[in-house]
Parts: sequence; C-alpha cells; structure tokens
Amino acid sequence: MVNAGDMNGSGNLMDFLDEPFPDVGTYEDFHTIDWLREKSRDTDRHRKITSKSKESILEFIKSLLDAWSGWVVMLLIGLLAGTLAGVIDLAVDWMTDLKEGVCLSAFWYSHEQCCWTSNETTFDDRDKCPQWQKWSELLVNQSEGASAYILNYFLYIMWALSFAFLAVSLVRVFAPYACGSGIPEIKTILSGFIIRGYLGKWTLLIKTVTLVLVVSSGLSLGKEGPLVHVACCCGNFFSSLFSKYSRNEGKRREVLSAAAAAGVSVAFGAPIGGVLFSLEEVSYYFPLKTLWRSFFAALVAAFTLRSINPFGNSRLVLFYVEYHTPWRRKTTRLGKYPVLEVIVVTAITAIVAYPNPYTRRSTSELISELFNDCGALESSQLCDYINDPNMTRPVDDIPDRPAGIGVYTAMWQLALALIFKIIITIFTFGMKIPSGLFIPSMAVGAMAGRMVGIAVEQLAYHHHDWIIFRNWCRPGADCVTPGLYAMVGAAACLGGVTRMTVSLVVIMFELTGGLEYIVPLMAAAVTSKWVADAFGKEGIYEAHIHLNGYPFLDVKDEFTHRTLATDVMRPRRGEPPLSVLTQDSMTVEDVETLIKETDYNGFPVVVSKDSERLIGFAQRRELILAIKNARQRQDGVVSNSIMYFTEDPPELPANSPHPLKLRRILNLSPFTVTDHTPMETVVDIFRKLGLRQCLVTRSGRLLGVITKKDVLRHMAQMANQDPESIMFN
Amino acid sequence: MVNAGDMNGSGNLMDFLDEPFPDVGTYEDFHTIDWLREKSRDTDRHRKITSKSKESILEFIKSLLDAWSGWVVMLLIGLLAGTLAGVIDLAVDWMTDLKEGVCLSAFWYSHEQCCWTSNETTFDDRDKCPQWQKWSELLVNQSEGASAYILNYFLYIMWALSFAFLAVSLVRVFAPYACGSGIPEIKTILSGFIIRGYLGKWTLLIKTVTLVLVVSSGLSLGKEGPLVHVACCCGNFFSSLFSKYSRNEGKRREVLSAAAAAGVSVAFGAPIGGVLFSLEEVSYYFPLKTLWRSFFAALVAAFTLRSINPFGNSRLVLFYVEYHTPWRRKTTRLGKYPVLEVIVVTAITAIVAYPNPYTRRSTSELISELFNDCGALESSQLCDYINDPNMTRPVDDIPDRPAGIGVYTAMWQLALALIFKIIITIFTFGMKIPSGLFIPSMAVGAMAGRMVGIAVEQLAYHHHDWIIFRNWCRPGADCVTPGLYAMVGAAACLGGVTRMTVSLVVIMFELTGGLEYIVPLMAAAVTSKWVADAFGKEGIYEAHIHLNGYPFLDVKDEFTHRTLATDVMRPRRGEPPLSVLTQDSMTVEDVETLIKETDYNGFPVVVSKDSERLIGFAQRRELILAIKNARQRQDGVVSNSIMYFTEDPPELPANSPHPLKLRRILNLSPFTVTDHTPMETVVDIFRKLGLRQCLVTRSGRLLGVITKKDVLRHMAQMANQDPESIMFN
Repeated sequence: MVNAGDMNGSGNLMDFLDEPFPDVGTYEDFHTIDWLREKSRDTDRHRKITSKSKESILEFIKSLLDAWSGWVVMLLIGLLAGTLAGVIDLAVDWMTDLKEGVCLSAFWYSHEQCCWTSNETTFDDRDKCPQWQKWSELLVNQSEGASAYILNYFLYIMWALSFAFLAVSLVRVFAPYACGSGIPEIKTILSGFIIRGYLGKWTLLIKTVTLVLVVSSGLSLGKEGPLVHVACCCGNFFSSLFSKYSRNEGKRREVLSAAAAAGVSVAFGAPIGGVLFSLEEVSYYFPLKTLWRSFFAALVAAFTLRSINPFGNSRLVLFYVEYHTPWRRKTTRLGKYPVLEVIVVTAITAIVAYPNPYTRRSTSELISELFNDCGALESSQLCDYINDPNMTRPVDDIPDRPAGIGVYTAMWQLALALIFKIIITIFTFGMKIPSGLFIPSMAVGAMAGRMVGIAVEQLAYHHHDWIIFRNWCRPGADCVTPGLYAMVGAAACLGGVTRMTVSLVVIMFELTGGLEYIVPLMAAAVTSKWVADAFGKEGIYEAHIHLNGYPFLDVKDEFTHRTLATDVMRPRRGEPPLSVLTQDSMTVEDVETLIKETDYNGFPVVVSKDSERLIGFAQRRELILAIKNARQRQDGVVSNSIMYFTEDPPELPANSPHPLKLRRILNLSPFTVTDHTPMETVVDIFRKLGLRQCLVTRSGRLLGVITKKDVLRHMAQMANQDPESIMFN
Repeated sequence: MVNAGDMNGSGNLMDFLDEPFPDVGTYEDFHTIDWLREKSRDTDRHRKITSKSKESILEFIKSLLDAWSGWVVMLLIGLLAGTLAGVIDLAVDWMTDLKEGVCLSAFWYSHEQCCWTSNETTFDDRDKCPQWQKWSELLVNQSEGASAYILNYFLYIMWALSFAFLAVSLVRVFAPYACGSGIPEIKTILSGFIIRGYLGKWTLLIKTVTLVLVVSSGLSLGKEGPLVHVACCCGNFFSSLFSKYSRNEGKRREVLSAAAAAGVSVAFGAPIGGVLFSLEEVSYYFPLKTLWRSFFAALVAAFTLRSINPFGNSRLVLFYVEYHTPWRRKTTRLGKYPVLEVIVVTAITAIVAYPNPYTRRSTSELISELFNDCGALESSQLCDYINDPNMTRPVDDIPDRPAGIGVYTAMWQLALALIFKIIITIFTFGMKIPSGLFIPSMAVGAMAGRMVGIAVEQLAYHHHDWIIFRNWCRPGADCVTPGLYAMVGAAACLGGVTRMTVSLVVIMFELTGGLEYIVPLMAAAVTSKWVADAFGKEGIYEAHIHLNGYPFLDVKDEFTHRTLATDVMRPRRGEPPLSVLTQDSMTVEDVETLIKETDYNGFPVVVSKDSERLIGFAQRRELILAIKNARQRQDGVVSNSIMYFTEDPPELPANSPHPLKLRRILNLSPFTVTDHTPMETVVDIFRKLGLRQCLVTRSGRLLGVITKKDVLRHMAQMANQDPESIMFN
C-alpha cells in the first residue's frame, strides 16, 4: 500500500463493477497512514460530489455544504475550545483561592470576584473584604498569629493534596491518555501515526476536569500544552461529525493542525502566535489552506474566550501561561506508583511553596509581576526603592533609584524560588497528570531575568562612571528596566526548551503588547536557540518523541550521509529473499501461508518469480479481507484456486477451480526508487510524500523494499556512528 | 537529469577517477533547476568538508567558517538592505520636497529637516521657516496669489516629469529587469527558474536609483515591492561571494527567501511580517532553517534601517508603504512606447494630483493621516468637528461630535482622490519603472474606509435612537473611530489584491502597533480573501506570473482531476516513439544526430531498443559537453566509436575504434512513476520534490516521459475544461 490512487483511483477505472468490501481503507492502531492515498481518496470523493452536484438542486446544495464544512468545523472548534478555556480559567481562579479561604456571600466566587462585588472594599485594600474569609477566620475566628498561620498552611496542603489525588485517580481510571502535555503525541499523530483514543471524548472530558484540578493544586506545571491537547480533542470530535473528515485520516489531520492553533490561541490569548506555533512546532503537513483555516479557528477561539472570561481583557490574565517541563525521566522507582508519586510531589510543592510569597501565588501572577515595571503607584515588594524626596519628574518617568530593603528581601526570596522551581518542575513534568511546560519555563526565565535586571540597575546606579554605563546611563536617567530583563529571560528560557523562534516572539508580544521590545525578544530567541542547539539539536518535544519511540520523521533533521537505497533495503545480504506475490500463478493457500508466516504490511506483485518485473503492490490487510470475503460468498473459491491480479484470468486446465480475481486491491502505482538512489533523496521522499514504504528496483526488476521504520532505524544508526556531523548544519 | 545524486553522488562511487569536465552542473537561462540534484550536490560538498576537517586545524577552521557562512550572509544582507532602504527613504524625502521648494541653509535638507534645524520655527507653524523657500518665493519673491500658485504648479509638474523621464531612461538603457515590482519574477525564481541578470548588480544599482526617482515624482506607486527586489539582489550578490551558495542554485534560493523577508522588513519596518510574507507569499521551498535565518536577516535589516533613518522611530515613517497595483494590462498601444507612456502618466498624475491636498502629498503621509484618530490637538481638516462648549471630559476621550465644514470638504476631496487613485494606479502599475502595489492598495482601502467610518459616525450621532446604534452608542459616548475603519479598509483592500492573510495582519499591526485591533484586522483579512476568491483564486502575483507565462507550479492550486500519467506523458498515440539512448550499442555519431534533431533536455538510457528496460537518464547538456571533451582530448574517440553507459566496455570487434565511457554522466536514479499513477499524485511529486521531469514505466519497461511543462499544460487544459471545479475547494 505504498502509493496513491490505488483501488479507489485507478483500480476503479479497471473493474468498477466489483463491489467494495467493508473495512477497506482504514488503518490499525499504532500504524502509519499513507498520505498520498488519503489525498487521492479525498479527491475521488470530491469528484463524485462535483459531478453529482449537476444532477439536482439538492445535490448542489449538498456539494456547497461539503465545500463549506471545513469552515464550519473551524467555527465549531473555535467556539468549543474558547468556551472550555474560559470555563477552565474561571474554575482555576475559584479553586486556587479555595485553598486559602471561601467567599461567604457566594461560595462559587473567587477571592477577586468576591471582593469586587462587595461594597465595603476600599481602593487601598482591594483584596480585603469581610465577605472573603480565610479558613482560619472561618474555623477558629483568628486571622493573625502562629496558630492561624499553621491552620491555613495545613489546609492549603490538604486542599492541594486532595485536588492532586482526585486528578491522578481520574486519569488512571478513566483516561490514561490524558496525562502529560500531549504535544509530542499530537506531533506524532499529525505526522501520520494512528493512536486510537488519544483524541477521544473521554480524554477530552477527563483532561479538562483534571487540568483544573492540577493547576489549582499549585503544582509547578502549566495549562497551555494540555489546552492544545484539549483543543485537538475538540477538533477530532467535530471532524467525526462530517464524513469528509471522519473517513479520511489525511483530511482529519488538517483539522487537527488548525485545532492546535486554536489551542495555543486560547492558552496565551495569542491567535497569530497560535497559528505560527502550529506551523513551526506541531504540524507536519501544513498547506496554505490549513494556514487560513487555522487563522480563522484561532480568531474564533480567542474571541469566544474573551467573551466568556471577564478578565480576558486585562493583560494579567493573558499571563495565565502554562508549563511544559523541559526534562523528562523515563522511569524512576517512584514512577511505578503514579498516584503515590503525584501525592509526594504535591505535598513537597505545597509545603515548600506556601512560606515563599513568590511560589505561593499562581505562576502566571508571578510572571506578570516580574514583567511589570515599577511605576509610581506600584506597591509590590519588588518596587521598594528609596525615592529621592526632591524628585520633580512626572510619575511615569522615574529615574533609576537605589534599592530599598524590600528589593533585597525580594532578591533572596526570588533566588530561593528559582532554585525550587527548577527542581520541582523537573519532577512534576512526566507525572501521570495533565501538565504543561510553558509557564514553568517562562517563570524560571523571568525570575532569573528580573534578578539580573535589578543587579544591572543597581550597578549602573552606584557605578555610573564605569565605562560600560558612562555613555547611556547618566545619573537621574531611567536607563535600566528590570521588567524588560524578566521578559527577555522568559522568552530565552522558553526558546531554549522548545526551540521556537518566530512563534515565540509573536506569542511574547501578543502576551505583553510590547511591540517596541521586538528587537531584544528576537535577539533572545535567536541566541537561546544557538546556545541550546550547541548542546543538542532536539527540542523538548522531539526528545520526548524519541524517548517514547514513536515513528516520527522529523523535518528538522537533515540526513547527510552517503548511503544508497541498496544499503538500507531489505532483504539484506544473507537474508531470505523478499516475499512476493506473482500475478497469476499462486493459489489461495500459497498466499494464506505467506500471510501467516510473515508480518509485512503488504507484498509486491511481480510478473513471475523469474522475471521479477514489478506489477504493483497488494496490502496485507486487504488481501486477508478479500480472501475471507471470497470464501464467505462461496463462489467456487477453494484453497487451490489460482489468485490473479491481471485483467483477464490466466489460461487454466479444464477442471481447475474457479480463480479469484484480485485486481481491485492491487495498487498499480507503487512508489519505486532505483537501488542507486542516495538515501538522502529517499528520506526526502518519505518525508515530503508521507510514504509508508517504497520498493527498490534496478532496470525494472524488483530488488527489495524500504519501510518507514527501516528509514528511521538507518537514520538513528548513522547519527550514532557520526555524531559530529550534526554540528555542522 | 530527473533525479538526485547522479554524477556527484552515486556516480562518484562508481568511477571517481574520471575527471570532471567544466560547466557540468550549471543550468541555462530560462531553464528550471533540479531541486533534488542541488540538494544532493550540497550534501556531497558538506560531506567532503566534514571529512577534511579531521585532517588539520586549518581545515577544521575552514569547516567552521563554512558552517557559519549562512549566518554571515544573512548579517551582510541585513546590513546592506537596511542601509539601502535608509538611503532611499532619506533621498525620497529630499526629492519629494524638492518639487515644491528648496532649503536655503543646506540644499540637501528636506523640508522637515530644514525647519527642524532652524531656530525660528514655532510649534504652531512647524512646517514654516524662513530657510525653506517655495520656488515662487525664490524665483519671483511671491509666496501667495495666482501667479505664485501657477509657477509652483508648473515647476511641480516639471520636476515630476524630469524625475520620471530620468528613471525610465535609466531602466531602458541599463537594466530592463529593474522595472515593475519584481515580486512575481522573484516568486518564479524561488520556485526554481533561472532568469540570469534579474538579480544582478546592475539591476540592484539601477533599481535603487530609479526607485528614488519614481517615488519622488509622485506617481501612484509604492516602494515596498521594489525594495523586496533590491533586497534579493543584495542576497544574490552576497551569495556569489561564498562558494557554498554561488555554486548551488538550491542553496542560493534559501538565501534569496531570507533576503525577501529582509526586504519586507525594511519596507514596512515589520520584521516578523517580513518573515511571514516570505513564507506565505514568495517562497517555494522554505525549510525551518530558512525560517530562522530569515528571522535573523529581517531583524538585522530592521535594526540597521532604524539606526540610519532618524525618522525610523516615528510611526509616520513606518507608513512609507509601497504600491503593487492589482491590475495589469499586457499591452496597450501606449505600451510600445515605454518612455512616452511614463511621461504621459506622470504628467496626468502631476496635473491632477497637485490641486487636491490628499493626492499632492506622499501616499504614505496620506495613509498615516487617514489612520489617525482625532485627538484634541489634531489640526487636520478631517478633524474639524463642532465641539460642545460645555464639554468637561478629559482630552483623550472625546465623544462623537457633529461634523464641521472641514470634514465635509474633506469628504468631497477624498472621494475625488479615491476615484483618481483607483484609475491612475491601474495605469501606473506595469509601466517600465520600478513600481510597487502595496501603498496604492492600502491608500485606496484607507480612503474608502475613512469615508465609511465618518458616515457611520455621523449617522450614529444624529440617529442614536436607531436600533443598530441604541445599545452601544449612547449620546456623549465615543463609539465610532473613523481611523480604525481606515485601517481595516486598508488591510481589506491589500488582502483582496494579494490574498495575504496571516502576514497581512502581522504587517498591519507591526505598522500601527495596534495589538488591540487584531480581531477586526483578522476579520477583514479573512472576509476580503473569501470575497476576492469568489471572483477568482489568483492573487496579483500569481496572475502576473501566468500573464508572463513563467513555468510556475503553484502550491496553492489543487489538482483534482481523474487523469493518469499515461494521459499526459509523451509520446502520445500517433507521435513518433520516444528518443532514447541504449546502454552500449549507439555510436557517437548516432547520439550527435539525435541531439541535433531533438531539443529535449535529456534522454532516458535503456538496455536495448527491444527490451526497453530503464537504466538511467543522461542530460543533453552533459552529453554534449562529454562528447566535445572526448573529441578534444583526442583519445581515439571518432564518430563511429561506441558510447557505453555500463561499468565494463561492451565486447567489440577487434578493429573497432576506442569506445567512449559515459557512466559518469548517467543518472542512475531517475525518478519514475507507473503509467497508472493518478496525475494528482504526479503533480504532488513535481511540486514537493521540485522535479524537472519524470519517466513513466509499466512493469519495468519505459513508456514515456512527463516534463514540468507537460504538467503545467495539462493543468491549464483541465482548468479550462471544467472551471467550476475550482469553486469547490
């Protein structure tokens, strides 16, 4: 089943009177699809509809509906993904605050909503109002003091543990595929792999619910990656409603690419960044039509989210970014007990995080505070500078000032938070719960960046006569902005983890609205990519894919070795000869034996074992179905019936049994290369045309076969032999 | 020459002792390159460098330099493109103002610079200062009155005519390729076509100079498209300095893609938009590596431009956008006299444009005024509203007000300017001068948008009880922003002309910094694409390419017909059989006759005329060179020498002349498909692998050949037969 247009295309022209039998044209789980074939099947479907549309008005309307179904699916995906993201945001707000207290006027209000609706809130104490009670106030009527602190601390840990326990149990029992970020698997699926159930309805439901739970539990993880997975589940669900997409694995993947864009769009509130992320990071086959549709889906999703989520307009909420931890252990001793692992990590997270203000709050709030510049009205500890009492400047242009005691405290707390974040994120990513890596990476980068920024600022203030500061940083000037350092740090860290470039910068400036910072952001993205590539070419997603051993042919890898198709094809020297079918001399029994003894996906068909001239290719699955079908129909087919792939039956002795015609399942246009074709070209062909296998010939004679797995194995071998060569791309 | 790895790849393994002969591996003008072959050649070069690098430190350093040369080229392109764009901007500013007057203190100052450096300028009359003298003031000492107006008018026309005449003469005499926007040709070149000199040094020089002249002359055209051409010329120049790029047409095109991104980056001050434009609109083969490099080049270019151009920080200058007129006549009677045509159009433009303030100024200034919101301090005619004397609001939140007399005057002038712009742009685009289409398209859209915006605003003000206004536009609210309508109109018009979507939105918001307007901009882009696609699928660049008949295989076209390779291949039924070479039975004379009698690019090599089993493919150009070379070297090769492509010479009679071994030029891995392969698949293969031709076989026997031109011709035929089918994609 190497090539396109087989039984639905050219086959049909030959013997279109044969009935099709069921199940033809589907794939088995954990198998790779054939892109060319899917494309060809879609063209056939499309042609049928076009020709029918001229018959009646009803058919014409049907054809119009079919033409517009792509946009309709995009609209539905955008609406559902935006709605889910909005609901998740609201639920996370509420449950995060539930760890600390409850709203008496309406228990379903978050802290902010509670005090927002209260009349007794003053501007100075925006986050204090009588309706909002901490647990210690409610239970023992104490708001201050050691016992109140310990009670709050204890309940904080308890809530976190119960959220995490509920989440890991739900994942374990109902939807094992709901764990992790899902992006590596989505990349693999988009490249043409089948993982049944990965994008199913249960995964959608459980991942949405558990995502709320784990984010609320305060674990060091983000919701952006999982939101991409959730959006792809939506995409899969809606494509199953339209036969155009549900029956064609290739077309379905176009929808999924757009859904991934919608997912990033709602995760960051960055519709264009979403489209670019889908293009740069996730997708495999991304035609321009998909670009436009992704754009539309991302737009609808972002718009829906903003309509639902009342905080959607504020920049703060845009920072509700997500984590995708950059390192992943494959197994640990703890890893065998996923529930225990989650409980232990949650307990450690909650115990360590509570006392430090920079880890207690949600990571997105932390990032947004780190990005902020210190205005005149800023009350954050990070902005505790010593003001010059004689200052006469306007409030929005504050010169560099010496740091106050608050800033020094903040520096210590940030340093501790940074170390904790780095360590705990390593352990969190890879647990059996939904977990993203964007937000933790950004937080790590932002903390480091802010600390460097403050250090440079103080250096410049106290040593403005140093040669590096002299020209641009006179006393009284506002020359160092620590918030910008944090932003650049976050971009650089995220870029190093994922190796995104263009989509990273677009997401960052859609997040921050800081168009003027595009140059430092771009420089950070390029530099972090260079540095990270020096340690290894793989981003986190590719590393993850390799770790899990998915058959993914990365478009970023370059194959530059000097091997030829003949070095890779099977059979190798010394191996038994290739299993082939002949066009008109094998019996049903011969074929059944061959099928039983081998596990190949298909068999080349040749004129005869002597001439070895290639006629076509027959797929294992379809051979089995065809023989089963013929035997059931009882039309004289027995074990010693001759099977023939030619148009006319072969001349047989008078009393031989009825022969079995199988031209219908013969792919008359199998993909071939010669044995002298460089493997570089073969890799290119596999990648660009999405082949499953390819036949190797010399002067028209069949020599062997190369499958996608052979190609991947060969690439891995060559990379191990000569790791240096990777450096020089 | 269908496939890759031919004589440099696999061929080398066979007989690497044969010396290469000169000129092998280059292409003729107006021919298509073979992508797979170029890629394979680069891999060989790369492998050689890598293996050499282990020999000595010098070679190791060389290999490092080679690895970094890509980034170095990008840096150089960014620097030069940014510098040229900056110089062009400054020169255009000066020469545009020269049409109206001159700076007495320094004649090389533009109006703005002249009064900026003057001490006698007041804030109210920023553009009036004694140093700047209108021509009438200087020549007849009159600044007002009819005679001064007529003199200024006359000199304005004279300057415009002399600029335009100089430009068209320069283009005609020195660089005919410098005319037009260049984007369609660059698209074609990037898809693998060779147009020698199109990106040459003369074109670079002349296009830069004439671009300044035509923009200054006030013609209805923009500089953005030509700037992309200029940047690509820079790219071509710098790639010629590095053998990695100069000797490989495939690698060179990677550099050119990045250069196009740098061009857009400086044209709009939009680095990310530039990368996306190159990806979405211009490029053909755009691997991720090119994405990163484009990003870097665009960044350097934008940074250089800002460093040079003192106005680069102001949003106004960012609006120095360029035109690419959307319609193009192929020939007019006037078209035969290019110089006269330019003179006539310039004269009409200057005569009509001068009296109307909206056409007299430069188009980018016009666009920037149309985009502007009416603040409290705005003195523009478009902002002449009747203010409520009792108004107590802050100055930056002005409610909707009734329009004053100035607004009504402006509406009339805008309507006239709109009609004039539409008509004159049609005639301007396609003249033999550098001319872009972005700015005129945006101006037309912005004028229409602003007019609609003002109309809606006044309707809402006077009829705020209408049902459509009632909910969101109460009296005293600021609910309609005409500037936003202009922005959306400009995006929609440009989108309709070019069919850009994502890159359009990114460019628009990089231009305006208006991140909050992303939703209306996206909606405008999607809607204008839908509406425009309903009239025809082609954007301006594709239409232009078709008009010029370039062999361009558009990735956006979908081929959905049911034809097979056998329907397209040559020879057709009734045509003489395919010209083939046999592997060891033809003489030098036979081959020379064959070459003389046909004009094919190459010939398939078969075992013998009877068996027709395919061995490989030999390129015409290389056959000619090999025979010429063999005859010159006089090593016993005469006209009746046997030519053989096998490894060992054939057995010949005792006294036969010395045979000629040609295995070296034989491509042992020609690309083949079977005669049953659907054309859809064949089109896909041509597009994705960048083939020039493809051989057609059945059961290992050669049947025919399909070239890129055959594919294009067939696609055009099918599209004409069944134009409806295009509608249903």
